[in-house]
Amino acid sequence: MLTIDQYRSEFINYLEAKTTTREPENLYAPISYILGLGGKRLRPVLTLMTADIFGKDYKEAMDAALAVEVFHNFSLVHDDIMDDAPLRRGKVTVHEKWDINTGILSGDAMLISAIQYFERYEGQVYKELLKLFSKTALEVCEGQQYDVDFEDREDVTIPEYIKMIEYKTAVLVAAAMKMGAIIAGASLESQHAIYEFGRYLGIAFQLQDDYLDAFGDPKAFGKQVGGDIIENKKTFLYLKSLEMATPQQAQELAHLFSIKPMDATAKINTVKDVFLESTAAQQTKDEIEKYTNNAFAVLEKLDISPEKKEILRLFGESLMKRKV
Amino acid sequence: MLTIDQYRSEFINYLEAKTTTREPENLYAPISYILGLGGKRLRPVLTLMTADIFGKDYKEAMDAALAVEVFHNFSLVHDDIMDDAPLRRGKVTVHEKWDINTGILSGDAMLISAIQYFERYEGQVYKELLKLFSKTALEVCEGQQYDVDFEDREDVTIPEYIKMIEYKTAVLVAAAMKMGAIIAGASLESQHAIYEFGRYLGIAFQLQDDYLDAFGDPKAFGKQVGGDIIENKKTFLYLKSLEMATPQQAQELAHLFSIKPMDATAKINTVKDVFLESTAAQQTKDEIEKYTNNAFAVLEKLDISPEKKEILRLFGESLMKRKV
Repeated sequence: MLTIDQYRSEFINYLEAKTTTREPENLYAPISYILGLGGKRLRPVLTLMTADIFGKDYKEAMDAALAVEVFHNFSLVHDDIMDDAPLRRGKVTVHEKWDINTGILSGDAMLISAIQYFERYEGQVYKELLKLFSKTALEVCEGQQYDVDFEDREDVTIPEYIKMIEYKTAVLVAAAMKMGAIIAGASLESQHAIYEFGRYLGIAFQLQDDYLDAFGDPKAFGKQVGGDIIENKKTFLYLKSLEMATPQQAQELAHLFSIKPMDATAKINTVKDVFLESTAAQQTKDEIEKYTNNAFAVLEKLDISPEKKEILRLFGESLMKRKV
Repeated sequence: MLTIDQYRSEFINYLEAKTTTREPENLYAPISYILGLGGKRLRPVLTLMTADIFGKDYKEAMDAALAVEVFHNFSLVHDDIMDDAPLRRGKVTVHEKWDINTGILSGDAMLISAIQYFERYEGQVYKELLKLFSKTALEVCEGQQYDVDFEDREDVTIPEYIKMIEYKTAVLVAAAMKMGAIIAGASLESQHAIYEFGRYLGIAFQLQDDYLDAFGDPKAFGKQVGGDIIENKKTFLYLKSLEMATPQQAQELAHLFSIKPMDATAKINTVKDVFLESTAAQQTKDEIEKYTNNAFAVLEKLDISPEKKEILRLFGESLMKRKV
């Protein structure tokens, strides 16, 4: 087994070798650009690591890891258009650097390229990977649609929100791990268990994202704290606050989430106070811990060595302790 | 073998049964909408017909035909956003009826759904179909990119234009037929030959589209004659005219293709006169005939009965005689 940093570095080398710009340049240059912006490379690292965990050389999982990362970046390019986002990882988004049409078409080409990376696998492994990929990809689209729908809805429930982040974020983390297991020839039980581990961890990861957006350390966080509050995003923190707050607080919160003041400082401070006073902040932390523990409980059932379980557990813990 | 109309009607029944609207409705309703707008269903009919030609029950090819048609409609939805097109088949486009974000996301979901329709095929047939599908899909994106690039270029050559329509249109017609051959278990030689037949026919089909756009009978054509001229599209007619015209005519043509007058009647008439006087109109007809004959020459090499060759030939001829 390698360390996380080693998997990441091996993956980045492979990614750079595989994503050279072809003709027509206006289609492929934006793809190289977005793939070169960095990021945690969480999903491909999980694919490589899981293949190793189930006893296969991680190099065998490299193309599946690439497919997962290219798909993830496809979804970022299209989501950034839909969200009208100017920045991604501190750099201008594809549709800002080029234009919306380029973002649409280059995104399409990324989605198709992702499928092609599976071609090096044979027979039933090929089909199982692609079936998992397409099912997951469609769920990611459904998650994005729920996210869009929720913007115009005032009655979003917490179970609906959890389902949305499960589809938009967690299923791809889960599928990234299951792909490693499929390539390693793990049993169906193990494939299912590692998928559940990834799914629970993915939900915890997104809840942590929501929490850090409001309560992260501005220095460590690397981006503007309070972005979700500025954008009136109905995150877990917001929905839980509405549920827990006094009628007066709830009214104030709903009002603040209907305006977009030029200077958002006061709004951010007030909203964070409500998040804290309503106990929603603490309950979000509890929820993150609950989903992380769900993930760890699944680990017990896995037919792998205690050392490998410990590696997965440490990885899960590091994700939950992250500041970024 | 069925008639073209029978294949189409069988396909439409299958399409309607398979494309029910699921949750989230805002993602799937636009898909049902665009797939219900009609059209010639040329590509899926070719998939079904080709399976029959190579001795397999066309019903076995139904899911591949569906994948091809759903992919084709995905490309229409995204292209219509890029072209800012208000109408498709006489009805409002998806991004006009809903919005651009819906068009992007529903299009993405269609592309992914298309992949899923192949899942009923097994083993090597599954992999061959998907490899052909992804290669073709990426070429269609590249063709669209060339089309976009050509808008800003004054030095587009005729070979470049032919390559663009080959990628944007012809390879999907070719792949639709080859998929029928793959499902039927035809030899690699036959698969290659039927692909070439479809590719030549697809190029002729698109050149015919260009020709009809300027010289079609307004009553039979069903849409505005001269649309490409209004939009300053650099079609084969335009590029050939530039090549053949006197310097004075060429200058006038280039000028007319740099303006968008409110009332385009005079512009359309002048441009059509130049298309005729420069012999570009006749040369376009010759080019259509050339590619059709290339297609028919490929037929000779195919190891199928004379009756089946005659069916393919008649189909090709009917496409070239079409008024719509």
